[in-house]
Amino acid sequence: MAELHPACAPLAFLLGTWQGAGTGVYPTIEDFSYAEEVSFTHVGKPFVAYVQKTKDAGTGLPLHSEAGFLRPQPDGRVELVLAQPSGVAEVLEGTVEGRDIQLSSTAVLGTDSAKPVAATERRLWVDGEVLHSSVAMAAMGLEIQHHVVSEMYRLS
Amino acid sequence: MAELHPACAPLAFLLGTWQGAGTGVYPTIEDFSYAEEVSFTHVGKPFVAYVQKTKDAGTGLPLHSEAGFLRPQPDGRVELVLAQPSGVAEVLEGTVEGRDIQLSSTAVLGTDSAKPVAATERRLWVDGEVLHSSVAMAAMGLEIQHHVVSEMYRLS
Repeated sequence: MAELHPACAPLAFLLGTWQGAGTGVYPTIEDFSYAEEVSFTHVGKPFVAYVQKTKDAGTGLPLHSEAGFLRPQPDGRVELVLAQPSGVAEVLEGTVEGRDIQLSSTAVLGTDSAKPVAATERRLWVDGEVLHSSVAMAAMGLEIQHHVVSEMYRLS
Repeated sequence: MAELHPACAPLAFLLGTWQGAGTGVYPTIEDFSYAEEVSFTHVGKPFVAYVQKTKDAGTGLPLHSEAGFLRPQPDGRVELVLAQPSGVAEVLEGTVEGRDIQLSSTAVLGTDSAKPVAATERRLWVDGEVLHSSVAMAAMGLEIQHHVVSEMYRLS
């Protein structure tokens, strides 16, 4: 196991695997509930790898997944690059304050066949033993608005 | 184990984990050699998840990694979205012909602190038992040119 890179110290509270459940809403789709697992890992370099998978709470079938990298920066800033199987790639910038990370997209890219996403805002925060994750999204031509929120507990 | 989505059939030759070695060159850096592991997995949906990690051939220390999703499209087309810990996100489009995937970036995004990458071309092809992977890159203000090439064998 590599030693944590000093730059990653502000993100150490995230490291490990977390499991829980969440709910999603958006004007263009039916409300949904999901089981979620996220993992944050490091290899001793100045970034934290992030992998997320969700399953339909009813059927257990896979829903969403995403993978990317958190890049801590000086002065409490943090960057996130993210790829999604929906054909969307995001670059986000924001801050980490204590155990609260807040990020806004600076650019969102999509493949030709991807549904249009214009912007996202993401928050990851730990309160007590609970990791909360929320995403707001401007997609399908709509203003940015709440999309998903979940609560997870540490598995390892 | 989910059944492979029919849309992924053209990518079935990639599924599994592959290990091998490669070499890298670029005018702005010293030549380097690396060990590489890639995995291609599916969950029954119309995409293939891709994870890659490399280590320095001499020291064994982690070098690069990337994660993303291949999205097969009709008519032998394929899309790739990719996130990298260097702070770069790529969207690529291309073709799959037999066991040969060729992709060119349609857009490359970087965080504020990322080194500038303007474009990439990627090829993944299987010849006999060998998976070849190559990347050409236009970065640091230079024209697109060969960057890395590797050969891997199936681990599972």
